[in-house]
Amino acid sequence: MTPPATHTRIVLARRPRGVPEEDDFRAEKTAIPAPGPGEVLVRTVHLSLDPYVRGTLTGRDLGHAPVAPGDLVPGRAVAQVVDTGAWVLAETGWQEYAAVPASSLRPVEVPPGVPRTAALGALGMPGLTAYAAVTRLLRPEPGDTVVVSAAAGAVGGTAGQLAALAGARTVAIAGGPDKCRVAVERLGYAAAVDRHAPDWTEALADACPDGVDGYLHMAGGAVLEGVLDRLAPGGRVVLCGLPDHANETGHTVLPAGAVMRARATVHGLVVYDHQDLAPRFAERVGRLVAEGRLRLLEDAHEGLTSAPAAFRRLMTGANVGKSIVHVAPEPAPRRRRRP
Amino acid sequence: MTPPATHTRIVLARRPRGVPEEDDFRAEKTAIPAPGPGEVLVRTVHLSLDPYVRGTLTGRDLGHAPVAPGDLVPGRAVAQVVDTGAWVLAETGWQEYAAVPASSLRPVEVPPGVPRTAALGALGMPGLTAYAAVTRLLRPEPGDTVVVSAAAGAVGGTAGQLAALAGARTVAIAGGPDKCRVAVERLGYAAAVDRHAPDWTEALADACPDGVDGYLHMAGGAVLEGVLDRLAPGGRVVLCGLPDHANETGHTVLPAGAVMRARATVHGLVVYDHQDLAPRFAERVGRLVAEGRLRLLEDAHEGLTSAPAAFRRLMTGANVGKSIVHVAPEPAPRRRRRP
Repeated sequence: MTPPATHTRIVLARRPRGVPEEDDFRAEKTAIPAPGPGEVLVRTVHLSLDPYVRGTLTGRDLGHAPVAPGDLVPGRAVAQVVDTGAWVLAETGWQEYAAVPASSLRPVEVPPGVPRTAALGALGMPGLTAYAAVTRLLRPEPGDTVVVSAAAGAVGGTAGQLAALAGARTVAIAGGPDKCRVAVERLGYAAAVDRHAPDWTEALADACPDGVDGYLHMAGGAVLEGVLDRLAPGGRVVLCGLPDHANETGHTVLPAGAVMRARATVHGLVVYDHQDLAPRFAERVGRLVAEGRLRLLEDAHEGLTSAPAAFRRLMTGANVGKSIVHVAPEPAPRRRRRP
Repeated sequence: MTPPATHTRIVLARRPRGVPEEDDFRAEKTAIPAPGPGEVLVRTVHLSLDPYVRGTLTGRDLGHAPVAPGDLVPGRAVAQVVDTGAWVLAETGWQEYAAVPASSLRPVEVPPGVPRTAALGALGMPGLTAYAAVTRLLRPEPGDTVVVSAAAGAVGGTAGQLAALAGARTVAIAGGPDKCRVAVERLGYAAAVDRHAPDWTEALADACPDGVDGYLHMAGGAVLEGVLDRLAPGGRVVLCGLPDHANETGHTVLPAGAVMRARATVHGLVVYDHQDLAPRFAERVGRLVAEGRLRLLEDAHEGLTSAPAAFRRLMTGANVGKSIVHVAPEPAPRRRRRP
């Protein structure tokens, strides 16, 4: 595998205001980065798009450095080490090749038959987020009603399935009838509520006749208030994503009266706090995926330059499944290339 | 003990708007209630004033029936059974004599040397509330910083002392310099912040250099927002009282961003959910009070007709300590009456 002399990278053109526009980014043709001491060159194959990236663009993310105009946009990818061909998870950023510290690489570990992109979704950070939310904070018991917003997204799609496997009746909240249909037909939610519908709170009440025992929040503030009104006594609420904050379009608030009325518990979830769950998560969810008991769903885009539009799609909640940009094709199996 | 033919009772004159006024109540002279089947006549000696009563006056309390104009104002008291002289806890309402179901009475159990009024405060519902908040939800560890609002009130005064006994550094938030002084000098808080001072959030930051690990909220919404801005990672917040809601003067909201930033846990506490703690609470806190390791503080008022003004004082947060109306004198010890 000999890399070309130049490649494409995507940098921040200007700080986004509100929901990111495609013009907030700019593709550049540059020399391939030269690995420094302790670094290796990797080729980006599958780039993960994640909501946390929005925060880095205005310096608001908890776990990552702020990104200034002209800087490479950060991102994690399934990549291949150029020298060895080894498959790794790497913080490549939005570029075709990256020089990264060898010590930062982790092997891509997916069960046989499972696509490597699962390591960015159900078997990656979004999956661990869902696993921590469900097993540690929502703790559904059989018969509980668990509501998941952004239900067809990377975290929500996994969380809904995990809650259902734990015996909960799961109700999806998603934007638009298409995503609601996907939620029920492909992700196994018992019911789905379209948050764009004017009567969505009534639909939620119909779907949750005994109230909401657990709620995973990754949507706008209006959704949070609507669900809190339906909270059952002792209900658990996990705040996992605040798109209003990420997009700087508003400030989500929780009505304290609803928390009191339900004697609820509200948790703020940041996945980095739950790394201790990673080994058990990898083993259990890996098996569920391999056995076909937990379905993968991807919002796939072709070519690095599709990343800005795909990211806008993600940040408006238009994606269905885990957002992935296929930056390079996976190489064909060796025995077919060398017959 | 022979009761008179008539007595005084206080009824709701009109539904309060906002903070209750004295004119929202009316004293009436009426015949002493006649006990029905299964009921006994009790004499109210010490009447407890509690914030939950405000909710009953506009039908918003979780655990009590709504009160209409003309109805007796509800309340719990240390009372004496007229026939036997036995000391009991009874739901007398705001009146000098009450006919109550015998099955509803509980004996007043306070350790030797402890005043019976403690059964309405530190050894009663407010004390159990504080005990549940501290031991079950805030769970302070030695070195934690625990902030208590309404810190010199019935719940706050006990909670602050319990958190300090658990090894926490405790910081009071109270209204005005007098209550702040009481909080430090009599209730043992390490520091106190006057929420009426314009720079109170800076004073809070100074008092909590390592952030707030636990917060017991019983104040206005502005206090909640100010404390949440100082929350340490993993902080626990207990919503225990919402005076804005009780007084119908506003709607308290929690900024979701602050909950996320601190990866906090927020609990809505209603004491009725924690009755299982009552035996352990009675044993442990009873001993602490008897040993003088937990101090009692009372905001005492003389005579039933002082109740409306005292209640207004409570609902504006002007009380220092547990609000009690001494409706009747305690009888002198028997051996002094019959020498």
